[in-house]
Amino acid sequence: MIITVSRQFGSGGREVGKRLADALGLQYYDKELVTQIAEHTDLNEGYVSSVLENGGFKNYAFTFGRTMPFVSATPAPVTDVLVAQQKIIKAIGQKGNCLIVGRSADVILKDFKPFRIFVYADDASKIARCRQRAPEGEHYTDKQMLRRFKEIDGGRRKLHDLLSMHRWGDKAGYDLMLNTTNINIKAIIPALAEYISKANKDEQ
Amino acid sequence: MIITVSRQFGSGGREVGKRLADALGLQYYDKELVTQIAEHTDLNEGYVSSVLENGGFKNYAFTFGRTMPFVSATPAPVTDVLVAQQKIIKAIGQKGNCLIVGRSADVILKDFKPFRIFVYADDASKIARCRQRAPEGEHYTDKQMLRRFKEIDGGRRKLHDLLSMHRWGDKAGYDLMLNTTNINIKAIIPALAEYISKANKDEQ
Repeated sequence: MIITVSRQFGSGGREVGKRLADALGLQYYDKELVTQIAEHTDLNEGYVSSVLENGGFKNYAFTFGRTMPFVSATPAPVTDVLVAQQKIIKAIGQKGNCLIVGRSADVILKDFKPFRIFVYADDASKIARCRQRAPEGEHYTDKQMLRRFKEIDGGRRKLHDLLSMHRWGDKAGYDLMLNTTNINIKAIIPALAEYISKANKDEQ
Repeated sequence: MIITVSRQFGSGGREVGKRLADALGLQYYDKELVTQIAEHTDLNEGYVSSVLENGGFKNYAFTFGRTMPFVSATPAPVTDVLVAQQKIIKAIGQKGNCLIVGRSADVILKDFKPFRIFVYADDASKIARCRQRAPEGEHYTDKQMLRRFKEIDGGRRKLHDLLSMHRWGDKAGYDLMLNTTNINIKAIIPALAEYISKANKDEQ
């Protein structure tokens, strides 16, 4: 069984993924992937993370691990990161029994027919969730938070849509879409695990 | 508990709704509503059904129950049907413990905070489903069926979007979106019922 969880920033998708992996006894992958890709490409983790979050399409102060700035329109390392990502995620898919959050795993692993979840929520609920989890002393206005959501999700969308025939967040590309607005995530995990076990195409 | 099920034509949304209502012991409403509205408005069921499926926006041979054709751009009975629909669906919502398939009930009942499901599937799966259920002797090409899906769903969309701030089929307007492609609907019903029971906002 392979499950992928795509998610809007602040929707609790990571919590859904972690708890679901625990409930189903699946290996869980999220930020670990960044470390693996950084090791594989010999690039800085901060840079790899930035490429994976916004496709390296933003100007990035390219000072890590190299002395010469790149002048190419598509600097080689961006491609390196994407190629490494594909390679590592496919190797994980090959082993099976895993749940991967983000990183376009839904598209990269499509030949393995993963169960593809998309987690989303309304703005008020995402803002409340982020505030609750913010480090002490962090204060953003609603407007600032909404701008940040747009930036982060915009990055995810761009990178996903490079690879996919369906747009990020378009229902056609997912098996189940969960709105976590006003939902206690912990409470729905057993039912969600059961749903996926029954629906999983490999078991048909 | 109030559940609404919106669905793409051919996705099995009606089956999801019927089985889910049975599993949760909820009163089920689908085509019954057309009969109620027809009785309420003293209009022909075929006409009411056509208004509810495509908003009466198509030319309709207006020969039922009246002798004079309407010349107004928006013939009064269309409004009558929509008003009656709202009235009847709201009365059903007031009673609670029900599941309503289609008829924009997700929007009409929004003050009751229903759990809003959207059911969809890919084209191949919808075609297969329709063929399996077609009366003997009915033969449509794939192309004809796809055109029919577009017509029917287009009608649902138009009527829904008249009332809603979210577009028909846009995830923002639903609590859970189910892709029934390759899924055995019967098998997932207990998990789905459990998910909704846990997620239901009224129980928070």
